[in-house]
Amino acid sequence: MQLGMIGLGRMGGNIVRRLLRGGHTAVVFDQNPEAVAALVEAGAVGASSLEDLVSKLEVPRAAWVMLPAGAITEQAVQTLSGLMQAGDCVIDGGNSFYGDDVRRGLALKEKGLHYVDVGTSGGVWGLERGYCMMIGGDTETVDRLDPIFKTLAPGVGDIPKTPNREGRDPRAEQGYIHAGPTGAGHFVKMVHNGIEYGLMQAYAEGFDILRHANAQELPAERRFDLNMGDIAEVWRRGSVVSSWLLDLTAQALAGDEQLTDFSGYVEDSGEGRWTINAAVEEGVPATVLSAALYRRFRSREHASYADKLLSAMRKGFGGHQEPKG
Amino acid sequence: MQLGMIGLGRMGGNIVRRLLRGGHTAVVFDQNPEAVAALVEAGAVGASSLEDLVSKLEVPRAAWVMLPAGAITEQAVQTLSGLMQAGDCVIDGGNSFYGDDVRRGLALKEKGLHYVDVGTSGGVWGLERGYCMMIGGDTETVDRLDPIFKTLAPGVGDIPKTPNREGRDPRAEQGYIHAGPTGAGHFVKMVHNGIEYGLMQAYAEGFDILRHANAQELPAERRFDLNMGDIAEVWRRGSVVSSWLLDLTAQALAGDEQLTDFSGYVEDSGEGRWTINAAVEEGVPATVLSAALYRRFRSREHASYADKLLSAMRKGFGGHQEPKG
Amino acid sequence: MQLGMIGLGRMGGNIVRRLLRGGHTAVVFDQNPEAVAALVEAGAVGASSLEDLVSKLEVPRAAWVMLPAGAITEQAVQTLSGLMQAGDCVIDGGNSFYGDDVRRGLALKEKGLHYVDVGTSGGVWGLERGYCMMIGGDTETVDRLDPIFKTLAPGVGDIPKTPNREGRDPRAEQGYIHAGPTGAGHFVKMVHNGIEYGLMQAYAEGFDILRHANAQELPAERRFDLNMGDIAEVWRRGSVVSSWLLDLTAQALAGDEQLTDFSGYVEDSGEGRWTINAAVEEGVPATVLSAALYRRFRSREHASYADKLLSAMRKGFGGHQEPKG
Amino acid sequence: MQLGMIGLGRMGGNIVRRLLRGGHTAVVFDQNPEAVAALVEAGAVGASSLEDLVSKLEVPRAAWVMLPAGAITEQAVQTLSGLMQAGDCVIDGGNSFYGDDVRRGLALKEKGLHYVDVGTSGGVWGLERGYCMMIGGDTETVDRLDPIFKTLAPGVGDIPKTPNREGRDPRAEQGYIHAGPTGAGHFVKMVHNGIEYGLMQAYAEGFDILRHANAQELPAERRFDLNMGDIAEVWRRGSVVSSWLLDLTAQALAGDEQLTDFSGYVEDSGEGRWTINAAVEEGVPATVLSAALYRRFRSREHASYADKLLSAMRKGFGGHQEPKG
Repeated sequence: MQLGMIGLGRMGGNIVRRLLRGGHTAVVFDQNPEAVAALVEAGAVGASSLEDLVSKLEVPRAAWVMLPAGAITEQAVQTLSGLMQAGDCVIDGGNSFYGDDVRRGLALKEKGLHYVDVGTSGGVWGLERGYCMMIGGDTETVDRLDPIFKTLAPGVGDIPKTPNREGRDPRAEQGYIHAGPTGAGHFVKMVHNGIEYGLMQAYAEGFDILRHANAQELPAERRFDLNMGDIAEVWRRGSVVSSWLLDLTAQALAGDEQLTDFSGYVEDSGEGRWTINAAVEEGVPATVLSAALYRRFRSREHASYADKLLSAMRKGFGGHQEPKG
Repeated sequence: MQLGMIGLGRMGGNIVRRLLRGGHTAVVFDQNPEAVAALVEAGAVGASSLEDLVSKLEVPRAAWVMLPAGAITEQAVQTLSGLMQAGDCVIDGGNSFYGDDVRRGLALKEKGLHYVDVGTSGGVWGLERGYCMMIGGDTETVDRLDPIFKTLAPGVGDIPKTPNREGRDPRAEQGYIHAGPTGAGHFVKMVHNGIEYGLMQAYAEGFDILRHANAQELPAERRFDLNMGDIAEVWRRGSVVSSWLLDLTAQALAGDEQLTDFSGYVEDSGEGRWTINAAVEEGVPATVLSAALYRRFRSREHASYADKLLSAMRKGFGGHQEPKG
Repeated sequence: MQLGMIGLGRMGGNIVRRLLRGGHTAVVFDQNPEAVAALVEAGAVGASSLEDLVSKLEVPRAAWVMLPAGAITEQAVQTLSGLMQAGDCVIDGGNSFYGDDVRRGLALKEKGLHYVDVGTSGGVWGLERGYCMMIGGDTETVDRLDPIFKTLAPGVGDIPKTPNREGRDPRAEQGYIHAGPTGAGHFVKMVHNGIEYGLMQAYAEGFDILRHANAQELPAERRFDLNMGDIAEVWRRGSVVSSWLLDLTAQALAGDEQLTDFSGYVEDSGEGRWTINAAVEEGVPATVLSAALYRRFRSREHASYADKLLSAMRKGFGGHQEPKG
Repeated sequence: MQLGMIGLGRMGGNIVRRLLRGGHTAVVFDQNPEAVAALVEAGAVGASSLEDLVSKLEVPRAAWVMLPAGAITEQAVQTLSGLMQAGDCVIDGGNSFYGDDVRRGLALKEKGLHYVDVGTSGGVWGLERGYCMMIGGDTETVDRLDPIFKTLAPGVGDIPKTPNREGRDPRAEQGYIHAGPTGAGHFVKMVHNGIEYGLMQAYAEGFDILRHANAQELPAERRFDLNMGDIAEVWRRGSVVSSWLLDLTAQALAGDEQLTDFSGYVEDSGEGRWTINAAVEEGVPATVLSAALYRRFRSREHASYADKLLSAMRKGFGGHQEPKG
């Protein structure tokens, strides 16, 4: 079927490419004409503006917005909803806050438009592996878009089948789900990223302990000079901690066990923060997920005010000046 | 080659079976004669005592102890070392504390005996998938035992090859490593389990947030009634959080999304605790791994004294009695 | 000076009493006529409705709302602002979310009204000890209300003077501050409560460790049967951890060291949650404050879904059923 | 009564001074002759060696060791016990690990010697405020030394009496307790310090949130430029978070709100670590106390390996290079 795509960065461009390979057609737009040209060459129909894109889409239209979350996506959705007509559909495939989806979905519904939010995981690997998708929206629209999702999804592949899934939604095995009403897709994707932070931090701490196993302050007979790369590699086979993140860890450590290319400064994105807010709102103790987020915050600080205050108190009751670090 | 096995529980028994299938021979002993008989039927040579076992092993002997860590393993290693002669080797394949390995290794070394510690991951799945092994000991002995380890390991299988591993130890790709001197095997395995706790807790918290997404206290338009089983299943395909633990989660949730068979009481084993002690000794901030361990401690408490004290303080400054939960 | 008080619960009633004792006058209203009557007896002027209260206040009016945060306070502020005239002032002395203050302050400003938010600490002890107040609002209005704040505040008392405070705002030593513009008062109070959670949890964990020092699993020679009440008492004198919360702890433990009156179910209020949201928004790692909040969430759960999922995974890879707790 | 003091640093010297002022006598020794001379001038009897000190003490002797914990204290206790005779007593007033006390106590008991461990809090303020003491040892010896403890303790002072303490040990109100058998004193002191870490971190995080309340990324109308010093000061009066640590915080912030003298590098001592080990051994969830310790570990790291690994994984699945911090 036909899809309009707004935003042809790495994610949007590859989604279009995977759709074209799968026999679908696409009308594409991006602020950058070169991005449009590249996909026209791959078989898409180019558009010079949102108006142009909307005019080139068949009714009922389906337009996928793949832009940075926040003001830019908001603007695009607003403009599109002004150009579209009842029965058309806007899909937000970016990393939007699910609360924004809920709000936008209600606003579009008043105009007879449909709003579908798609949380996608898979990043740069999606073109090759397929995109894992968590979808929110009304059932009719999500079902109508099913050919698109089916093509984008990884498919069953050679991953072992989970027993006892007879009678359950077969789409999950294909790599996509209709999670619930508008907002549910990004909500599930948000929690996915929250978990991701926790998993990453668990590995990071484990390797940190392994790496410091030869610290000078340890008794000599209990000091170990361990090989990080070999450990990551061996755990990929038959161990309980095997995972795709471990595969990536093994790859990074095979290249450079010292990780000298990295400064130790770690970004976080909205999803990790929203996950904590959701947990707090629900009253769910998200101990590990919060701790993981905070370690990223901390990684970006030098000479933290909190730490200085600890030293000031220590000086107050102990009379000693903390050494300079 | 030939191996002696002491302890024929689920782990020890299956290790012997995998060795026999791989063309090795085994002399086996267990307190339970039926366990011995079962393996004799599978092709092993039975022994009626540790003395009998030692007498049936060819020199230089290799005897693998697969018993509960602590006093029972200690006793078996002591007895074996008294029966063996210089050049022989004791292998501790259980879940021993690495500090005990270091101590025992030094003691056996004085008698000319070798001590090898093997941390294994794979549990009940090992017979089928192979055992992921982390080995500590002197190079000569570990090399001599290589045929055993090679057979027990999962092998390369169809797991994608990690780039840039040329020139690195090829055993890691087979699923076993010589981690370092005595104690290093169990040290690496210990951290493996510490990471495992962190990973598990990250998933557990994420699904907890998902499950409470329809809590009554949330605004109605942001309440979602999500399908835990489908979410776990979809994340297995192309998502960043895919892992073996997620596979197991999907299996459990496919069977019963309510998890009604479980009480919420969660055990912990020594490795998780020792990992925290090691982190504290090294001065490594193991935020997430500690938090994961503590959640298990907490799962086993009812009416915690710490929580009661919070209520007592609240009553002190707020004048109100906490409601009964 | 004269103050209107809406809400004559424990807090509102005692605030009026302290003002009357200090020579001020008050017009009071509550849904419960008995509460009004009690304060009329103490010297206040009673009002039968908000309209009546507003009519009995001298211009420029000052009306203090001391009601549960959320919808009830919102309603009262809205009604008052409809009854008042330019130059009048609404004071929210409850536990409102500072974001609500900011919003309400902007709305009232458009009508020429002033909005002052007052975070108060001291609870049931305020009548006797005075109220520690953190005030947000425009300088002119806060200054105009100063006689009220001065009377409510604890005053310098016999607390040792902090050196080097010459030239700093003298109100802080009296026990009240003008923290900043509208919202700043409740923001500071919110963080105060966030800290309170962390402090309480630190004591709770410490006493939990002390209480379990005679656990059966510890080696006999390192088991201690400690006296919680005596420990709390001794730390009140000359130790680094002495505090008012420790005083309350000592009182509770002097009464009943077992704390048998408490179920272990611990409530939390909005401030603790908002503090975490603020930290997440600011990118500040609030490790301990979050952990403290989560322990309260956890105290209210039985058979947590997160914990059940841990057991399900353990069964998956270890093959064993968790024992019932 | 008479006490021998070994180690005349800030702590040991001031303890002797407080004893002399209280009418006791002291024989003192230190590696540094000047330290001995200074106390001789204050009225103590000097000793030139441990042998000399022992010879100058009346039988039954009482010798207080006030040296750095670990090897130095171990050496002093060993030497003293070799010089002393049955009925004499060694007091370890330093920051020893309680497990070492238990071991040393058992060893000395075999020689008929007594061993008393005293955990002291109060630091540089002890001479003036008195020392809060937690004492472990056999009852007979602790009772015999009571005049010493009574003089060193802060006494009842003007701290409000805790209700319902009739019939409880009156020593707690004086500022010292007999916590239990050998080791119990340092155990209680250890947990005291663990709590101290948690309290300090709670304040540090709170002030960190306050300080970042004007962060540029916040919406303009919710940004507050708060005065740290005034906030600390106001909380000292009537608020729930008032404490001695808050007094010290107010002092530090009155001097320099920016805390520019401090690097943010924060030391930790043994007690904080041992507290975590004890909690892990007991199975007590010490969430906040561990988090507080780890924040100190983290304060001393630059470009943490754990953080680099997070970036490496992010690059692996997201394809982007983390910016340099």
